[in-house]
Amino acid sequence: MKKIEECTVGIAGLGLMGGAFAMAFARLGVPRERLLACDADARTLASAKDQGLVAEGSGEARLMLPRCDLVFLCLNPSSLLRFLAAHQGDFKSGALVTDIAGIKGSVVLAAERFRPDVDFIPGHPMAGSEKGGFDNAGHCDFRGKNYILTPLARNTKENLAFLEDLLRRMGFGRITRTTAGDHDEKIAFTSQLCHVIAAALVDCADDPSITRFGGGSFEDLTRIAMLNAPMWTELFIENREKLLEHLRRFRKSLDAIGSLAASGDAQALEKILRGVREKRSAMNG
Amino acid sequence: MKKIEECTVGIAGLGLMGGAFAMAFARLGVPRERLLACDADARTLASAKDQGLVAEGSGEARLMLPRCDLVFLCLNPSSLLRFLAAHQGDFKSGALVTDIAGIKGSVVLAAERFRPDVDFIPGHPMAGSEKGGFDNAGHCDFRGKNYILTPLARNTKENLAFLEDLLRRMGFGRITRTTAGDHDEKIAFTSQLCHVIAAALVDCADDPSITRFGGGSFEDLTRIAMLNAPMWTELFIENREKLLEHLRRFRKSLDAIGSLAASGDAQALEKILRGVREKRSAMNG
Repeated sequence: MKKIEECTVGIAGLGLMGGAFAMAFARLGVPRERLLACDADARTLASAKDQGLVAEGSGEARLMLPRCDLVFLCLNPSSLLRFLAAHQGDFKSGALVTDIAGIKGSVVLAAERFRPDVDFIPGHPMAGSEKGGFDNAGHCDFRGKNYILTPLARNTKENLAFLEDLLRRMGFGRITRTTAGDHDEKIAFTSQLCHVIAAALVDCADDPSITRFGGGSFEDLTRIAMLNAPMWTELFIENREKLLEHLRRFRKSLDAIGSLAASGDAQALEKILRGVREKRSAMNG
Repeated sequence: MKKIEECTVGIAGLGLMGGAFAMAFARLGVPRERLLACDADARTLASAKDQGLVAEGSGEARLMLPRCDLVFLCLNPSSLLRFLAAHQGDFKSGALVTDIAGIKGSVVLAAERFRPDVDFIPGHPMAGSEKGGFDNAGHCDFRGKNYILTPLARNTKENLAFLEDLLRRMGFGRITRTTAGDHDEKIAFTSQLCHVIAAALVDCADDPSITRFGGGSFEDLTRIAMLNAPMWTELFIENREKLLEHLRRFRKSLDAIGSLAASGDAQALEKILRGVREKRSAMNG
């Protein structure tokens, strides 16, 4: 692989994350003339070009892909799978490709069946913002964030090292390599279950003036309820088997605590809460 | 009421909140010789005196109370009720007294039955920190935080105005006056339900290394799981009727979202999530 400054980089999808990656590439010294983008939205493309962020933006991926040494696919899961099917022939031979989809089972399957002369390393940056879209890309901070890669057996050692080095230089903290199954299982808990909980908490609120009585807890628990509805609908449904199992376990814990409060069993309730405090402390970092 | 700088102020209970109020009084210019405290823990009292925060600290409230024009009772709900019963005779006639307990039904009942020559205004600062205790009092930031007062019919207009002015000068933002019933109903939702959810989420986690897969959601939802177990046990049990009703409604919303994910009904799920986003936006501020 060339040095990043010498690569032609393509970004497919200039949403919040695509925009944030474009900015990160610019900061790393990829010259504008080698930073290309495609997006379905003409206004977003015009805005990215006006800001001097990308040299060329097009609604047509096939104009960009044949020239790119490195491609970041910043699309929702379903759009990503359609994109891969439609544009398999357009990628440059020898290109390094990665994606950012929040579910990896179906993506890894598609990547394994992809053209063997293109090195596709599936990934998932654990970064984002409750303010979505390209206009908010500047709010998406990569510094210290986790990044999960679910490499294929056929990915080259060199490309994996290149991508990890690139992500670290963009500011990401811990980079974890794991399987798609393990990723989807863990993410169902740390991300999808948390978003379902936040959404349910807002859904059941009966008084919009409730924040006058807030001390930060409700605010902290529901910040992520400002979610991108189409994307999270896809993620919840695509990963439902694992999500529903975590939801079942969460309800069990919820009911156990509720029952102890109902019965007034202070000793047992206090024991659970002490255990929770210790467990959460041990999880830090 | 005198000016605050001329008052002798007593703080009963030098935990996180008692310590933070002591610091706030010092910042407002209450001279150290008129800032008194009592606490059951000799080490905490010594530490507060060593830091020059209070002039006198004692394990015996009856040494402090007869001299205090203003008393902040910074105790857990059950300790507060015991304190009021034990020390009713020790308060100075004409004193203004307030408390910080997170549940107000039982406190208001006790305050209404309290000595008529003492003006007891029940209150609840919506501030705190997941790091408890006097040593962390400096982490407890009052700026812009909500404060709820549940005044009695007999509280004087002058004392209410004095207390509200004092709290604003300490940095608190919105101060809301309401009934004990309304407070307990709203707090069961914004505070207690949120703490039960956070505790359940940590309780059901099966992998302590899960934070490697975190993007901030799990961290945001479980920061408050670092809870003071004895205090929250009291709050959950004391307010269980209202808490359990909110818990029932939360579970209903949780089940509705879970069922739509299970059935793969993308249209209905996306509609709920869009509604949640709008509702949460409208709640801001």
